[in-house]
Amino acid sequence: MKPMFDRVWLNAHLATMDGPSAAPLGIIEDGAVASRNGRIAWVGRRADLPGQATETVDCAGAWILPGLIDCHTHLVFGGNRAAEFEQRLAGATYEQIARAGGGIFSSVRATRSASSKELFNSALPRLQGLMAEGVTTVEIKSGYGLQLESELKMLRVARRLGEAERVQVVTTLLAAHAVPPDFAGGAAAYAQYVAEEIIPASAGLADAVDAFCETIAFSPAQTAVVFAAARAAGLPVKLHADQLSDLGGAALAAAHGALSADHLEHASAEGLRAMAQAGTVAVLLPGATYFLREARHPDIAAMRQAGVRMALSTDMNPGSSPARSLLLMLNMGCTLFRLTVEEALLGVTCHAAAALGLEDRGLLRAGLRCDLALFQVNRPAELCYWLGHNPCSGRVVGGE
Amino acid sequence: MKPMFDRVWLNAHLATMDGPSAAPLGIIEDGAVASRNGRIAWVGRRADLPGQATETVDCAGAWILPGLIDCHTHLVFGGNRAAEFEQRLAGATYEQIARAGGGIFSSVRATRSASSKELFNSALPRLQGLMAEGVTTVEIKSGYGLQLESELKMLRVARRLGEAERVQVVTTLLAAHAVPPDFAGGAAAYAQYVAEEIIPASAGLADAVDAFCETIAFSPAQTAVVFAAARAAGLPVKLHADQLSDLGGAALAAAHGALSADHLEHASAEGLRAMAQAGTVAVLLPGATYFLREARHPDIAAMRQAGVRMALSTDMNPGSSPARSLLLMLNMGCTLFRLTVEEALLGVTCHAAAALGLEDRGLLRAGLRCDLALFQVNRPAELCYWLGHNPCSGRVVGGE
Ligand SMILES: [Zn+2]
Ligand SMILES: [Zn+2]
Repeated sequence: MKPMFDRVWLNAHLATMDGPSAAPLGIIEDGAVASRNGRIAWVGRRADLPGQATETVDCAGAWILPGLIDCHTHLVFGGNRAAEFEQRLAGATYEQIARAGGGIFSSVRATRSASSKELFNSALPRLQGLMAEGVTTVEIKSGYGLQLESELKMLRVARRLGEAERVQVVTTLLAAHAVPPDFAGGAAAYAQYVAEEIIPASAGLADAVDAFCETIAFSPAQTAVVFAAARAAGLPVKLHADQLSDLGGAALAAAHGALSADHLEHASAEGLRAMAQAGTVAVLLPGATYFLREARHPDIAAMRQAGVRMALSTDMNPGSSPARSLLLMLNMGCTLFRLTVEEALLGVTCHAAAALGLEDRGLLRAGLRCDLALFQVNRPAELCYWLGHNPCSGRVVGGE
Repeated sequence: MKPMFDRVWLNAHLATMDGPSAAPLGIIEDGAVASRNGRIAWVGRRADLPGQATETVDCAGAWILPGLIDCHTHLVFGGNRAAEFEQRLAGATYEQIARAGGGIFSSVRATRSASSKELFNSALPRLQGLMAEGVTTVEIKSGYGLQLESELKMLRVARRLGEAERVQVVTTLLAAHAVPPDFAGGAAAYAQYVAEEIIPASAGLADAVDAFCETIAFSPAQTAVVFAAARAAGLPVKLHADQLSDLGGAALAAAHGALSADHLEHASAEGLRAMAQAGTVAVLLPGATYFLREARHPDIAAMRQAGVRMALSTDMNPGSSPARSLLLMLNMGCTLFRLTVEEALLGVTCHAAAALGLEDRGLLRAGLRCDLALFQVNRPAELCYWLGHNPCSGRVVGGE
């Protein structure tokens, strides 16, 4: 008789992320997970396991979580900004650095001039670093091309990374990341170009559309132009919102039914309530807050009160968050933003899945993708507690 | 004819840490390092290499630094405090946690009741994590025993770690870490006990003596009692100084010719000048500042002005700095304390060596130990710039 399951993971404890609201981690000590055809077929107490499996995996006492999800990265880019970091610490002003060709446009220049192969090769170790921590799904944004061909090149590289590695890559078109200084007509004209040219051309390459709504980037009205084109193309939207000032980005994202609004340091309580109503996830990026030494932190109390789901991500990028570890963001989310351990862990699993509009992952639940992350810790809180430590001892993608 | 060198490292760039004060990293592009009998025999431009070697190592374009030195750790301890971290984030007060048996004395209880083997096994991965980052010398303090046998047990475990692994371990007796609540007579009597019983008994097991001078621990006068016993035993001293308040710890350390004074968030400018005069190194511990969310940072400008040498370390410990990455401290030193890249890198090499009184390491210079750390980066600044990334590609201890 054919065994009931393809594979079963035993000698493990589970944090299913599928518990009741009073105990959302869904802890099952001495639990088991069984897979069939790449999906989770059964989750529960080992003693209750109902059938046999073709293969049994001994997890050596590890904790099993849903495969981690990094839902906001810019991990494809040319060059890096270490020299600029060094100059700034040595006393150079922003103007001096800009005059020396630094800032975001140095990343744009390096990304435009890099070949696809160069972009792939430089991004690969960054992606692999996340994978080594138990990450099984990664969102990757474009946004350092700021012209049609370079934006599409970034998206193709992101797709290719997902094909080359045992990880699911979700792509986001962020052509509206900054106004290219060489674009005639400024922000409004560039937003129009993004809407009319880049978004239609990204069909099949982008899973979502994002924009940076900020005084130094695009106004709410310009953002709306981009979002309308996304809707016409059938793509869900996300928003870099209220990071440096309150332009009403949270409410704007909610009004457009965005999957997520990200950063939110300056979001108003009304904006957060609108997000909760719309089901828009708040993506918290403590790496950027830390690296930019922002005094203003996102208003976690207001998010709790509004009932907004909170995700947590690296924002990995060369300028404002050269953070290459999602586990480090668990610590920063707790230490800097005072997230609870439960909030932090939900933030890199089921709420991160929601921020990407993915309903097939982020929990240990029968029927979902069998994406697992195994950790050698005594309790899940250790994933948040240690600083600069990776206890990942195994990783399963689609049951393999 | 016998080759001139045992081994030579080629196809590398060097940061010798032995440059002039205007360029202290001592950069040599396309350099070479040669060893003989475990020592560095020659350092310079590859083109100038004067002889042959028995073995040639191709470094694949890596940067070579002196092996990194973590000069302040408490990495031997029983248990951990992840549960306490979780409770505090969930809203528990310090009193509730203390009543539930939390705080430093929970680590003391766990350390006292652990066997040497248990302490060794739990510390080993923490040590190995540092080694994987290119660390070749680690200081390990006692201080969770707070009674003779348990303090000696910790020191023996630290020594054994150094024997078991390819790393140099320097031990520090920190019996004066806290006043054990079960000790009759309080702080003064316990300091006397440390001076009269524990320090003499630690002969051969401790390379230095440390104390925690703070309102919640030992007064300057009690610290002086401990230091006098250290001098009588022929041991150099170090001090946890001015972390939470200004008790004049910096000046006290200087007056006793301490190797280092550590933390120093509240140190006065006079204290720092006294340290510079005495050659006492300032050990900066940004992991603790970060983890405790201390608003007050060490006064780096005053340290620069006084000419105090600054080292940088993890302070790895279960209560106030569960930091397991020295590379992460490079970023935190730069991001939080605004150290320059040069200061940060000197802080984990030659200034860390000085904080331990070691004159045979911390630079790439002929005659010193051949302890090397190799990194796959394009410039040394990347070691400070990335957050949560380990580019170490090789490690050499005593020429091997
Ligand atoms: Zn971003
Ligand atoms: Zn310490």
